Amino acid sequence: MPEVRLNQITGDWVIIATERAKRPEEFKHVREHSAFPEHSPSCPFCTGNEAMTPAETFRLTDDEGRWTVRVVPNKFSALTPEGVIVKRRDDLRECLSGVGLHEVIIESPMHNTTTALLPLNRIGDILVAYRHRQIAFYDDERVEHVIIFKNHGEDAGTSLEHPHSQIVGTPVFPGQVMNRLNEAIRNYYYVNFGDCLYCTYMKGEKDDGLRVVSENEHFLAFVPYAALSPFHVWIYPKRHNACYGHITDDEIPALAVILKEILLRLYVGLGNPDYNYVIRSLSPGGADAKYFHWYLAIVPRLTKAAGFELGTGMYINTSLPEESAEFLRNVPIGAL
Amino acid sequence: MPEVRLNQITGDWVIIATERAKRPEEFKHVREHSAFPEHSPSCPFCTGNEAMTPAETFRLTDDEGRWTVRVVPNKFSALTPEGVIVKRRDDLRECLSGVGLHEVIIESPMHNTTTALLPLNRIGDILVAYRHRQIAFYDDERVEHVIIFKNHGEDAGTSLEHPHSQIVGTPVFPGQVMNRLNEAIRNYYYVNFGDCLYCTYMKGEKDDGLRVVSENEHFLAFVPYAALSPFHVWIYPKRHNACYGHITDDEIPALAVILKEILLRLYVGLGNPDYNYVIRSLSPGGADAKYFHWYLAIVPRLTKAAGFELGTGMYINTSLPEESAEFLRNVPIGAL
Repeated sequence: MPEVRLNQITGDWVIIATERAKRPEEFKHVREHSAFPEHSPSCPFCTGNEAMTPAETFRLTDDEGRWTVRVVPNKFSALTPEGVIVKRRDDLRECLSGVGLHEVIIESPMHNTTTALLPLNRIGDILVAYRHRQIAFYDDERVEHVIIFKNHGEDAGTSLEHPHSQIVGTPVFPGQVMNRLNEAIRNYYYVNFGDCLYCTYMKGEKDDGLRVVSENEHFLAFVPYAALSPFHVWIYPKRHNACYGHITDDEIPALAVILKEILLRLYVGLGNPDYNYVIRSLSPGGADAKYFHWYLAIVPRLTKAAGFELGTGMYINTSLPEESAEFLRNVPIGAL
Repeated sequence: MPEVRLNQITGDWVIIATERAKRPEEFKHVREHSAFPEHSPSCPFCTGNEAMTPAETFRLTDDEGRWTVRVVPNKFSALTPEGVIVKRRDDLRECLSGVGLHEVIIESPMHNTTTALLPLNRIGDILVAYRHRQIAFYDDERVEHVIIFKNHGEDAGTSLEHPHSQIVGTPVFPGQVMNRLNEAIRNYYYVNFGDCLYCTYMKGEKDDGLRVVSENEHFLAFVPYAALSPFHVWIYPKRHNACYGHITDDEIPALAVILKEILLRLYVGLGNPDYNYVIRSLSPGGADAKYFHWYLAIVPRLTKAAGFELGTGMYINTSLPEESAEFLRNVPIGAL
């Protein structure tokens, strides 16, 4: 019998379609890997080609002074970084000028690697870059909301091989994020006890244990009870904090460990699947909000959203979250 | 300069990325058409193979008694039609048994056609089938919400060639649909004047005219001001009515005409793109709701949702809605 599970964090129901369910191994595919070179003369993200990008806004270097992470404005930005925001309203047609910030985080000088395979300290560098740029973006008073995300592979919306992620600052506060805040604010635990929904939910997942994939001193990684798609993983910080930018220097290496571990389990277990990850967060000004909690969501793109999902916002998950978690726990990855 | 437009119906902002924008023609692709046969011996939806499907729940026939549309339970249903709903709650883990209805509308006996190419009276038959099944689904007291949708092509989530659409009755009311109702109920026009947001919005689109693609006595088809993707088209009934199932016998042929016209403009103009369409509606019991208005949304799948869309619910549209509408208006399609 299928189940319909409520995702208390998003307010969305998910159909766990056990009758259609596949075994976890069935999602594994053998990918046709083009033999990418370690360096590509035409890639603007490769070492030696730094002049092909707009002027960088941030960089970290290794002990020999070579850059490990560079952040540059996106040449094909969806929003324009210059100008003031003009608002226009003509009855029900309302718009703002498309002013905002959009940068690319180049995650490695090497062309043919992927985040899962980077050394831990390099993943830490990426996380430090995210923190720096998120805070800088929110310093721009035209920015209302900042989203950090990664698109890995064509099904996840990128055709660039060179490992990179992105950060966008929008001049509006997204309706979907507002809906999440509403869910958290009107939740029973917050309304009655002032408890953060996310903290309460995380405690439940930890105690139950069935869907936990990994845990360390500062983070818990688990497949959500109402995961919207197979191998969907959430990484929650144990310390209550609504803003990613307020992550501490102690927490960064712990996040690098658990992020690498999860990405590597997906890479080995499912054959380098396409995926997106996003960091959901409020602004530094909202860091102390009791009702929100930043987190990182990883969504492998193994299934397609079709008319049902478009028309209802409900997803049909053809895997059992408990089985996805068990499968991921058992992927042999060796020492990180 | 890009624009950020508010979709007042959904509450979501959309980035109209004019800097990245393509000309409408650039979305056209020449599709590799496999030469499908008119009849496939292994296809359960083809004439002569009726025994391969579960027992049909509805059919319409032509003057010679041959079926034109059949509706059958989905063999690979996401929900199970038998059983009672059991609710379980364990703290923040809440679920229902996956009981619900899921049927397939077989749109034609012919294997190798597509909805856009069917005669008008056959499209009318499909719309009559939708009406009948929607009302029947809502008669089942276990059903809380019904969605009618079509997936055309692999990028839209189907691999079956034989033209078909689907109807699902879920035992829960989707959070996304609830959010839409909230938008409509708290809208300025409804709060202050008791006016339907959709009626008001449709009037604005008609008066402005820039994004209108087609119109007849009963329906208006237009690219929404804040279209979330290229060539996104909404078909609104002019008569205020919250439930598709209450569409009249006069309105059905008018909807068939405008639906065929839009699908044909997409087929000819863009080279048979993959698309989804969905009919958003309340139940017959809610048909008189002043704040909601059923409509049909067509979403060509020409771009991919990536991390930005996942993390914000905001879409980046690389076409200007006014240009999409003009392009569609000018596609030569001849008489219907």
